[in-house]
Amino acid sequence: MQEKYKGMRVFTPQDYTNLEQITDIWVKVAKRYGFLQYKTSILDPIEIYKDKTSEEILKEQTYSFKDRGGRDVVIRPEITPGLAKMMVGMGREIKYPYKVFSIGSVFRYETEQRGRKREHIQFNADIFGTKSLWSESEVINLAVETLIELGVKEKDIEIRLNDRDHMENIIEGSKEIKRKVFRLLDKRSKISKQELENELSIIDSNLSLNEIDKKLKTSPETIDSLKKAVTKGKVIYDSSIIRGFDYYTGIVFEIYVKGYERSIAGGGRYDNLIESYGGEKTSAVGFGMGDTSLLEMLPKTNQKKAIETVFLITEDVKYEQKALSLADNLRNKVNVSYLGTPKKVSDIYKRAENEGIEKVIVLSNNTIIRNIKTKKDKEVDIKDIQKSL
Amino acid sequence: MQEKYKGMRVFTPQDYTNLEQITDIWVKVAKRYGFLQYKTSILDPIEIYKDKTSEEILKEQTYSFKDRGGRDVVIRPEITPGLAKMMVGMGREIKYPYKVFSIGSVFRYETEQRGRKREHIQFNADIFGTKSLWSESEVINLAVETLIELGVKEKDIEIRLNDRDHMENIIEGSKEIKRKVFRLLDKRSKISKQELENELSIIDSNLSLNEIDKKLKTSPETIDSLKKAVTKGKVIYDSSIIRGFDYYTGIVFEIYVKGYERSIAGGGRYDNLIESYGGEKTSAVGFGMGDTSLLEMLPKTNQKKAIETVFLITEDVKYEQKALSLADNLRNKVNVSYLGTPKKVSDIYKRAENEGIEKVIVLSNNTIIRNIKTKKDKEVDIKDIQKSL
Repeated sequence: MQEKYKGMRVFTPQDYTNLEQITDIWVKVAKRYGFLQYKTSILDPIEIYKDKTSEEILKEQTYSFKDRGGRDVVIRPEITPGLAKMMVGMGREIKYPYKVFSIGSVFRYETEQRGRKREHIQFNADIFGTKSLWSESEVINLAVETLIELGVKEKDIEIRLNDRDHMENIIEGSKEIKRKVFRLLDKRSKISKQELENELSIIDSNLSLNEIDKKLKTSPETIDSLKKAVTKGKVIYDSSIIRGFDYYTGIVFEIYVKGYERSIAGGGRYDNLIESYGGEKTSAVGFGMGDTSLLEMLPKTNQKKAIETVFLITEDVKYEQKALSLADNLRNKVNVSYLGTPKKVSDIYKRAENEGIEKVIVLSNNTIIRNIKTKKDKEVDIKDIQKSL
Repeated sequence: MQEKYKGMRVFTPQDYTNLEQITDIWVKVAKRYGFLQYKTSILDPIEIYKDKTSEEILKEQTYSFKDRGGRDVVIRPEITPGLAKMMVGMGREIKYPYKVFSIGSVFRYETEQRGRKREHIQFNADIFGTKSLWSESEVINLAVETLIELGVKEKDIEIRLNDRDHMENIIEGSKEIKRKVFRLLDKRSKISKQELENELSIIDSNLSLNEIDKKLKTSPETIDSLKKAVTKGKVIYDSSIIRGFDYYTGIVFEIYVKGYERSIAGGGRYDNLIESYGGEKTSAVGFGMGDTSLLEMLPKTNQKKAIETVFLITEDVKYEQKALSLADNLRNKVNVSYLGTPKKVSDIYKRAENEGIEKVIVLSNNTIIRNIKTKKDKEVDIKDIQKSL
């Protein structure tokens, strides 16, 4: 039989503790910044991605199909279009500035390389309804703070900023030409300078890479301001940061951690998206951060945390009913995993040690608490057992 | 433009607080019972559902498609097959009894009636590796305890139990005949007695509904034992409980809450499933509980909980940089939602009241804390502000 579906994420309980550490911190820090959680569905009508998501993603990297009712459906490759649709539906219920976050899977049918996954669990945070740069600062600080909470050293965090608005002013030509040039510059790290120049002259023979680069050297004012406002991590201007999506309108950024080559988070300003879904014109800035890079980047700690759960076992099946009552009682105070009547009690001691469980209660006509570290047994009165744990 | 995709669940921040209340309790109670969390993907190869899930679901109610690589893919209609595959992959890494739970979406293309949804967020909990009835007790107690934590009165909770094994002994004929009879009896509440008798005689002319029902009257021993072992809720024997899935082998159950007609949770024993995926024969018992019925059933509380977040605003853009530093500082202690420089400060007071926020800090050349309930302002020294919150 076929193994699990290609590129999908399956977290065994042990894997899940690593994921949970990340998602717990995402939630905690987002709430600390006053963001409210929402949840959209992973299935969307295809229309909401047209002319929004990058063409490459929509045409080559989506999971899409016709449902039993003939509707064209996409399994979401990103969160933002679904969020925008939700907000248009909410209308005047929303008070601005509106600060929201979500955690959920996104799916891209990407060519597999270096074990690249096709499902990612993504954290998105966005602020709507203000053009002011404080909102860029807030989302960047939020992203950086989650990394610090995850144990990354602040000095190792680099925020690479660019301004699409500034670039639009530099590149001469129609909207369509600018769009094409952005897409080309986005591939900069993957192709040679010669190829870049060739493709640029195909877009418009008047364009010169040297001239564009010369103008790009001076950092725009917006970025100089952000360098002051972003209080965490190291902020640099990097004109090679483009971001794939067509909908960005101003600041774009990516966050890197020293020693890890891929970006850990990325985002930017997109002031026209809500309007394009039929809502009122609404300024917006936000970012996404996926679990896959984080799990690769974060140091693997194999330390066993002591778990606040006790094992409970019985020495004979005739004590099982008594064990269930005891478990019920103890659960007011501690987590209790009842494991029935094992063939060998010592197997359960070994398992407890492996799983970081500190105490095992063995029930027969008396009650023993085994301390797994010290390997000492203590007989206790079943009525006083809560105190002894 | 098309609204959100039919039947899918979109939770605005306000909706999400209701969902979060449920998922938080699921996690808390499952951990209290010593269950470990896992997470499988929502995309599965179609093979793992064949001959497992009910035929009706697989043929008529799945979202399924061919991916860009020609593979047949299903968006999971249930959690258990993916879990079984994960466990077969883990092999000897697993120590039994193995107690696990997960929370995630399942999707069924069902005919819409009474606003029935096509996506549900489901809680699953299972115990593997023991045939003993204590495992049925544990999963049922766990399910009931989540309901009690959610505010349902224990006396309103009814657990309806049946035993498929017992039924197999009662119905005479081949495995295939028994399977067909189970499917027929599962439809009992939807069709007339006459239709039931007709269809039964089509399956096998020797079968008599009256005789089956007579034999079904006496409750099997297993259920008498469980009546003692399940310590929470009211346990009754109900021979009409069948459960749609073909893979159940012993006890099956559904949980009902007085005043709400549909079942809130359902599950049972399935001792052959893991083996059917190529693993070793492994006893198993578990249940699923969806958010949709819970949200419908639970009383709507419109009480505004006081949120431990403060709003921070500035009276002029020139204080924004100062506000960001202050926010950064305060976030060591409280959640701070910075909302920039509003046109009218009173709008923010109104919003705070609506959203259950108790304090608003207004920053200009001095620092004011507004208490939303008492409508009183207090000027504080910015250096001492942490103490004043």
